[in-house]
Amino acid sequence: GMQAWLAEHQPHVIADELGRQDAVTAGLLFRLLDKDRALTVFEELDPVDQQNVLSGLRDRSFHELVEAMNPDDRARLLGEAPAKFAQRVLAGLSVRERALTADLLGYPEGSVGRYMSPEVVPLRHHLTAGRALDTVRVKGEGAETVYTLPVVDDQRKLFGVVTLRHLVLSPPDRPIIELVDTEVPYVQAVDDAEAGARLMQQANLLALPVVDSEDRVVGLLTIDDAVELIEAADTEDIARQSATTPWSGHYMAAGVLQLARSRVVWLLLLIVAATLTVNVLQAFEAALDQVTALALFIPLLIGTGGNAGSQAATAAVRALAVGEVRTTDVLRIAGRECRVGLLLGAMLAVVGFAVGALLVDIPVAGTVALSIIAICAWATMVGSTMPLLAKRVGIDPAAVSAPLVTTLVDATGLIIYFLIARVILGV
Amino acid sequence: GMQAWLAEHQPHVIADELGRQDAVTAGLLFRLLDKDRALTVFEELDPVDQQNVLSGLRDRSFHELVEAMNPDDRARLLGEAPAKFAQRVLAGLSVRERALTADLLGYPEGSVGRYMSPEVVPLRHHLTAGRALDTVRVKGEGAETVYTLPVVDDQRKLFGVVTLRHLVLSPPDRPIIELVDTEVPYVQAVDDAEAGARLMQQANLLALPVVDSEDRVVGLLTIDDAVELIEAADTEDIARQSATTPWSGHYMAAGVLQLARSRVVWLLLLIVAATLTVNVLQAFEAALDQVTALALFIPLLIGTGGNAGSQAATAAVRALAVGEVRTTDVLRIAGRECRVGLLLGAMLAVVGFAVGALLVDIPVAGTVALSIIAICAWATMVGSTMPLLAKRVGIDPAAVSAPLVTTLVDATGLIIYFLIARVILGV
Ligand SMILES: [Mg+2]
Ligand SMILES: [Mg+2]
Ligand SMILES: [Mg+2]
Ligand SMILES: [Mg+2]
Ligand SMILES: [Mg+2]
Ligand SMILES: [Mg+2]
Ligand SMILES: [Mg+2]
Ligand SMILES: [Mg+2]
Ligand SMILES: [Mg+2]
Ligand SMILES: [Mg+2]
Ligand SMILES: [Mg+2]
Ligand SMILES: [Mg+2]
Ligand SMILES: [Mg+2]
Repeated sequence: GMQAWLAEHQPHVIADELGRQDAVTAGLLFRLLDKDRALTVFEELDPVDQQNVLSGLRDRSFHELVEAMNPDDRARLLGEAPAKFAQRVLAGLSVRERALTADLLGYPEGSVGRYMSPEVVPLRHHLTAGRALDTVRVKGEGAETVYTLPVVDDQRKLFGVVTLRHLVLSPPDRPIIELVDTEVPYVQAVDDAEAGARLMQQANLLALPVVDSEDRVVGLLTIDDAVELIEAADTEDIARQSATTPWSGHYMAAGVLQLARSRVVWLLLLIVAATLTVNVLQAFEAALDQVTALALFIPLLIGTGGNAGSQAATAAVRALAVGEVRTTDVLRIAGRECRVGLLLGAMLAVVGFAVGALLVDIPVAGTVALSIIAICAWATMVGSTMPLLAKRVGIDPAAVSAPLVTTLVDATGLIIYFLIARVILGV
Repeated sequence: GMQAWLAEHQPHVIADELGRQDAVTAGLLFRLLDKDRALTVFEELDPVDQQNVLSGLRDRSFHELVEAMNPDDRARLLGEAPAKFAQRVLAGLSVRERALTADLLGYPEGSVGRYMSPEVVPLRHHLTAGRALDTVRVKGEGAETVYTLPVVDDQRKLFGVVTLRHLVLSPPDRPIIELVDTEVPYVQAVDDAEAGARLMQQANLLALPVVDSEDRVVGLLTIDDAVELIEAADTEDIARQSATTPWSGHYMAAGVLQLARSRVVWLLLLIVAATLTVNVLQAFEAALDQVTALALFIPLLIGTGGNAGSQAATAAVRALAVGEVRTTDVLRIAGRECRVGLLLGAMLAVVGFAVGALLVDIPVAGTVALSIIAICAWATMVGSTMPLLAKRVGIDPAAVSAPLVTTLVDATGLIIYFLIARVILGV
């Protein structure tokens, strides 16, 4: 049965399965694990599942697990947990672990300080490789990583980084000053954690030194946490891009209410914004009455505009997220995307013209074709520049979602359509 | 000038800047770098930029750079490059490096074999920690990583993994069989690379052992490449989700034609699909003529349906990508998302009813409100299940883009609207 399944599978498979279950089932399953594997499985759970599992445990196992956690993982867990749960955790910790955790929780949410490992082994810059290795042997047990070792000067300021690989492969009498990489990137504890993680990706680092405002080493951001940060940031952006409020948690474990809650706010805002389209159509009701065929192309026109705008917005949001675009690029992007929109519009207009000519007549077909070109150019420009402008004023660019762009283009696209109809058809 | 800027900035900053430039400028800037830094900068470039830079170099520097690359990075570069360029690269390589590269290129595109490092240090399982460290010292220089060391049995089959940390922190006479982790995950070289990368994230690994069909160690997938794989997979999914054909390359370095090319195929397919909406409206033209007010709500209704569908599709695609959902979950998801859609629709219907009652009359308002509920339930069901069904039949679920769902919901939503109008208004 269950027990056999748990014994046969690797910790990450079990963690994966627990994440799919509701809180009660996850807790029950977890208590069936034998002790050594329980910790491994626990470390691979998402914070929200860790909280679920912990909530079902008695004080003794509860505190053993929490005490064994790394300070950064504990800080992440507490950062997302309700105050009462956080108190229960902190109350049971040893003085040392509580202090380490409290330090991390002192940094702002989303900063590197929340995700770094404070347990590092700094090396003085005058050591030899052999002496440095001895230091690692003495102090390395409690450190989260010993592969990237920050080297510090006499004021404990960051001087550079030496790797365990270099220490092991070098002759023991070689001064580490000859092995140290002084050009390695580093960040401040108050800096943005996602930016730190993407920096590690760019520079292929296993650990990124973290310093305080006086350049003293306070921790290391390790790659496993950087990967989680990148995945979480991407998940968040993807949710925002579809006009969903980001929430942490497993899709299969979420209830109907939770899913609805994450989606309703934007849907309500967007339907209110969409009432603008009703007003626009009312304003042009006379034209619609005169040439009823105009109504036939409304979904096609605004649909196409929305699609082109979504593409441009998504490209800009992703380029901003991975650091390929800066907010100062806005004019260059507007110009380029406008030309892209004109080009795309010209190709799509051919289809629009054919459909119009086939189903109605040439003047209406011409109106549809010209509208497609104008709407596409407008949509790509709006879609690509809005994320940059949002970022400039401090709004998350991913909030410029495909649905938001689509809704805006719906209303403005209708205006473009009827203005062109007025010129061509005289309505 | 430029030279000073290059000397002052860290390699990853320079790599970042080169990625923003066109091929010629990137090549010119790169040639201004002094030799030691050139290699570091080169390693941090995207494959497409590496190719740009290499194309501008004379044979000597060209071959020095290519020979110094890691085999996996070289295989990635060649995998994306034109045949002529690939030949120039392979022709200049040493026999050893050419063989290593050719081995990797022998694995299918997108498989772990293309991304792994073949230069590993396997340890025999009967060694002591001290002897194992000696082996690392002798053979470690050429290996990509020495932090994760595969342990093999007498048939060279994977037995487990030991870390350099354990070797350094243990007494030299301790047998590594006591230090080895035999439960660590591993993959086959022909397995999917993205899945391997996500496995490393889940299990917090720095390197993942890769074996052949007989369980012999052939390489290690290292975390730096896993991070690139995850980022590239996310970028690709995000592009697909906005109905864009994924392309590798820097957004700022892309030309108008390249951007248009990546977007035009889907836009054309979608505008052709959107002609369905013209047909639907034609079919219900009599109803539109009788109650012209019905036309006013078309953009609002299909826009709302498209938004709700996009949210559901995006959630399902992401859940599939990060492994939270399996294709067998389809019925459970359909049922749940239908209820989510009904709930959301009920809330949005209030707005729709108010707008309808204010601007037209109660019967039209009722028609709009009921349509919103039905369309939302339909849209969330279609949006959430289509990605799973796509995956079942071997199509990338991310191809179920927000614009695709929107376009489908546009046509079907109109049918729902006019059918409800027929019942309520008798048109
Ligand atoms: Mg997860
Ligand atoms: Mg500890
Ligand atoms: Mg990298
Ligand atoms: Mg950590
Ligand atoms: Mg962690
Ligand atoms: Mg973000
Ligand atoms: Mg639409
Ligand atoms: Mg890039
Ligand atoms: Mg090599
Ligand atoms: Mg992880
Ligand atoms: Mg590599
Ligand atoms: Mg690499
Ligand atoms: Mg994919």
